[in-house]
Amino acid sequence: MRSDHSVGWGAVDDGVVERLRSIVGAEHVKTDDGAVAAFSRDATPLFAARPDVVVLPGSTAEVAEVLRLSTQRRIPVVPRGAGSNLAAGTLAQDGGIVLVLTRLDRILEVDADELLAVVQTGVTTTELAAAAAAHGLLYLPDPGSKTVSTVGGNVATCAGGLRGLKYGVTRNYVLGLEAVLPTGEVIRTGGRLWKDVAGYDLTRLLTGSEGTLAVVTEVTVALVPAPADSRTGVAYFPSLADAGRAVARVIADGVVPATLEFLDNKCVNAVEDFAALGLDRSAGALLLFGDDGDPDTVGRNLERMAQSCAKEGATGVTLAQDVAASEALLEARRCSLPALARLAPVTVLEDVGVPRPRIAEMVGRIDDIAARHGITVATFGHAGDGNLHPTAVVDPSDGGAIDRTKAVIGDIFAAALDLGGTITGEHGVGAAKLPWLADRLGADQLALLSRIKAAFDPAGILNPGKTGS
Amino acid sequence: MRSDHSVGWGAVDDGVVERLRSIVGAEHVKTDDGAVAAFSRDATPLFAARPDVVVLPGSTAEVAEVLRLSTQRRIPVVPRGAGSNLAAGTLAQDGGIVLVLTRLDRILEVDADELLAVVQTGVTTTELAAAAAAHGLLYLPDPGSKTVSTVGGNVATCAGGLRGLKYGVTRNYVLGLEAVLPTGEVIRTGGRLWKDVAGYDLTRLLTGSEGTLAVVTEVTVALVPAPADSRTGVAYFPSLADAGRAVARVIADGVVPATLEFLDNKCVNAVEDFAALGLDRSAGALLLFGDDGDPDTVGRNLERMAQSCAKEGATGVTLAQDVAASEALLEARRCSLPALARLAPVTVLEDVGVPRPRIAEMVGRIDDIAARHGITVATFGHAGDGNLHPTAVVDPSDGGAIDRTKAVIGDIFAAALDLGGTITGEHGVGAAKLPWLADRLGADQLALLSRIKAAFDPAGILNPGKTGS
Repeated sequence: MRSDHSVGWGAVDDGVVERLRSIVGAEHVKTDDGAVAAFSRDATPLFAARPDVVVLPGSTAEVAEVLRLSTQRRIPVVPRGAGSNLAAGTLAQDGGIVLVLTRLDRILEVDADELLAVVQTGVTTTELAAAAAAHGLLYLPDPGSKTVSTVGGNVATCAGGLRGLKYGVTRNYVLGLEAVLPTGEVIRTGGRLWKDVAGYDLTRLLTGSEGTLAVVTEVTVALVPAPADSRTGVAYFPSLADAGRAVARVIADGVVPATLEFLDNKCVNAVEDFAALGLDRSAGALLLFGDDGDPDTVGRNLERMAQSCAKEGATGVTLAQDVAASEALLEARRCSLPALARLAPVTVLEDVGVPRPRIAEMVGRIDDIAARHGITVATFGHAGDGNLHPTAVVDPSDGGAIDRTKAVIGDIFAAALDLGGTITGEHGVGAAKLPWLADRLGADQLALLSRIKAAFDPAGILNPGKTGS
Repeated sequence: MRSDHSVGWGAVDDGVVERLRSIVGAEHVKTDDGAVAAFSRDATPLFAARPDVVVLPGSTAEVAEVLRLSTQRRIPVVPRGAGSNLAAGTLAQDGGIVLVLTRLDRILEVDADELLAVVQTGVTTTELAAAAAAHGLLYLPDPGSKTVSTVGGNVATCAGGLRGLKYGVTRNYVLGLEAVLPTGEVIRTGGRLWKDVAGYDLTRLLTGSEGTLAVVTEVTVALVPAPADSRTGVAYFPSLADAGRAVARVIADGVVPATLEFLDNKCVNAVEDFAALGLDRSAGALLLFGDDGDPDTVGRNLERMAQSCAKEGATGVTLAQDVAASEALLEARRCSLPALARLAPVTVLEDVGVPRPRIAEMVGRIDDIAARHGITVATFGHAGDGNLHPTAVVDPSDGGAIDRTKAVIGDIFAAALDLGGTITGEHGVGAAKLPWLADRLGADQLALLSRIKAAFDPAGILNPGKTGS
C-alpha cells in the first residue's frame, strides 16, 4: 500500500547521501545491495520493500539532523530497532531511509532506590531485564521476541507478553521518553515520576504509535522488586471450552494469575513432535497457569488454580515444585512457534484479541475458517487477556495457498471484531493490518488519527503507509 | 487568563438558549443567577468565572448536538462533573456553556467474569467502587474526592490517590472510552481488552486531557478481586529526613507498599487539634504504611516495614491488628485537609511531585519558601510516589497575604522542577497552573500540545484557557 503522500517524495540522490554521511559518519550510511536487502524485510512473512538507504545514527542529535533533512526534502524515514516486527511495521514501502537505532545501545542508569531504569532506545529487552536483575529488580514486560527486540521497538508497538492480565503491558511501565519530532525538535515526555499530569499524556500516545509520530531515542521505565518465587502448573482438558470454563473459575475464585497460557490440540502435537516434552497428545487443550510473589501465596494460588481446573474436568494437572520445573513447563508455550514453523515453509503468526470468556468460541471460529479455506491453522495464546495467536502453516508451492491464507486472515479479523475483540493485541497494525483498521475504529476515529499524525509530522515522512497515513 | 480564541466567541443569545432547550429539554438549561453562580466556581480557591448558561445533557446524543451547535457558533463549552477540581480546570473563563454531565449517572455493567465495569461519565467514584464491591471486586484508583468526584472527572484529570506506587493511577485502569468530539462525532476508543494496540492510544491521550479534547460520556474500567486483607501501621520520626531514609529502606527491602503517606509536624499538630487521635505532637514526621493482599503476606510486609522504620530511628511504631484499627490510623491522613482548613479562611491545597528520594529536601525547600514570604504552609502527601500536597492556610484580611501566597506557589513549582519533579502530580493543570506548563514541558512540547488540541477541536471551543489553548 502506498500512502497519500507517495506522490512527490524527494529523491535520495547523491547529495542527500553525502549529507547523511556528514551527519552520522560515512561508515553508518549503507547503500550497497547487501545492506539494503537486509533491511528490506522484518519478521513479517509475505512482506518486503526496499529502502534507498540505511542510516545508523549514533546520538539523539544525529537523529534530529537526519529528520530535519528528511522533512525538508520530503524523504520517507522508517525507524527500526531489531526488525522483529510481525506486522510489516518497519518496512520502507515508499523507499527512502531506514533509520536503524541499534547503535543507541547504552544502559544509562538503573536506580534501585527510585525503582527505574533509563536506557537508550536500541538496548534489547533482555539486556534491560538483566541490568534490572543485577539490582534484584524485574522489568515486567516480556514480549516473545525479548532476546532480540529493542526497548524502543517495545515502546513503538506497546509490546505485550505473558503477564498482561496481572501486570499489564509496556505502556504500564514507561515513565518517560526522549523523542525527536519529524521536524527535528527533541522533546522529553513524562519523566521519573509515577504521578505526573502536566500536559497531555504524550508518553502513552507515543507508546504504540509504531514510529509514525516521532522517533523515540531514550526510555525511562519502572521496575519492581523481583518476586521471591514464581511457579507454574499445567492442566489438560478434553476441549478448549472446558479450559475456558476453568479460566473463568480461576478468576471467580479471586486469583489473578501472572501466567495463563493455552495451546490447542494442534499446537500440543506440533510441540510434542518438535521437543518430545511428554505432553498429552490427546488433549483438546493445554493450559499453563502460574503466579509469582511470596512463596506461600504462590503455592496457595497454584493449588487453588489446580482445583479450579480439576472441577472443570481437567484430565490431568501437574504443579511444578520449583523454578526449574516451571521453566520446563513453560517450554511447551515458548516452543509453539518454532514447532509450528517446522511444519511448512511459511508460518504466518497472527495476533487478535477477544474478551476472555469468548476465547473458546473464537478458536472454534478460527478452526471453521481454516477448514473452509483448506489452510492449517493452529492457535495458542494468552488465556488471561484474550490475546490469541492463530498461526497458519502454509506451503506456497501449493497453488493458491498464499491467497487462501490471506482470506483466512481477513475472516479471522472479522470474527474477532464480531466477538467484541480487536485485530491486534500486541504486534501492532503496521502495513499488514492497516486495511482493517477502519473496521476496528470507524471512519471518524481513523480521520482523527490522521489529524493527530499531521500535528506531529506535517510532511508525512515518518513511517508512511502505516497508522495515520 | 483568556485564550487566544477569546476574540470572536459567538454570543449565547436567546436563539442559542432556545436551541439548547430543544436539545436537552427546557428544565435542563439554566440561565438564572443562582445556577450560573453555582457553576462559577469549582473547588479551587481564588478562582471564579461566570458561564452564560448551564446545560445538563441526558444522553451522548444530546452531548453531540450541543457540541455541534457550539462548534458552529464558536461558543466555549466547559465539561464538568462534580466540580471538585482543584486546578480551576472546570471554570468558564471565556463564558459560554458549562456542560454538566451528572445526569449521565448509570452503572451500565459490572462483569465479574471479565473483571470490568462500564459506567456513564457522571457516576461517582464511590458509586463505581460500591458496585464493584458488590461483586467482590475492587476499583483501585481512590482520589481523595472520591465520594463526590465523578468517574468522568477522574478520567479527565487522570486522578491519583493513595495507591500510586503499587497500583498506578486512573490511566492504568481505563480500558475504553466513549467520547464526543467537539465537532459532534462519537468515537469509541479501546474497549474491553487488556491488550489492544489497534491505532494510537486515544484512551490514554483523553485520560488527563481535562476536557480540552473531547467530552467523555462512557468509561470502561478494569477491576481486580478485592484483596483478602488490608492493614496499616504508623511510625513517628524526629525529622522528615529520617522518614525519607525509612522509605528508602522499605523499598530496598523489596516491599512495594499499597499505602505510604506522610504528614509533616504542622499537619500532625493540626490533625491532633482537630480530631484528638492521640498523635505524637513532637514528631518531625508521621509515616503511614500499609499493604493489601493475602493476610500472611500483609502481616509479614507490615512487620518488615516496621523494622525498616525502627532501623532508621523511628521514635514509635504501631501496627493495626485489623481493618478497623487500620481505618482509624488512616484517619490522620484523611483529615489533614479539613484540619488545616480550620486554621484560616482560605486553604490552598497544592500538588507537586518530586522523585521519591527527594521528598524531605523538597519539604525543606517548601518550609524555607513559606518562611521567606511569611505564609503558613503545612505539607502532607504520598511518600511512595513523591506526590506532595503543600497546603497554604491564609487569612485574606491580612494585607497582601493572597499575593504572597501566589508567590509561594510559584516558588514551590520552581523548586519542584529544580529537583526533577513536576507542577502537578494528580490534580491537573487547569487554568491555575497553565502559566507554568511551559516551564515543565518546554516551548516545543507546548506547541505540539496545541497542534494536537487543534486536531481534535478546530474551533477551539472545548474548555478554552486550559492545556492546548
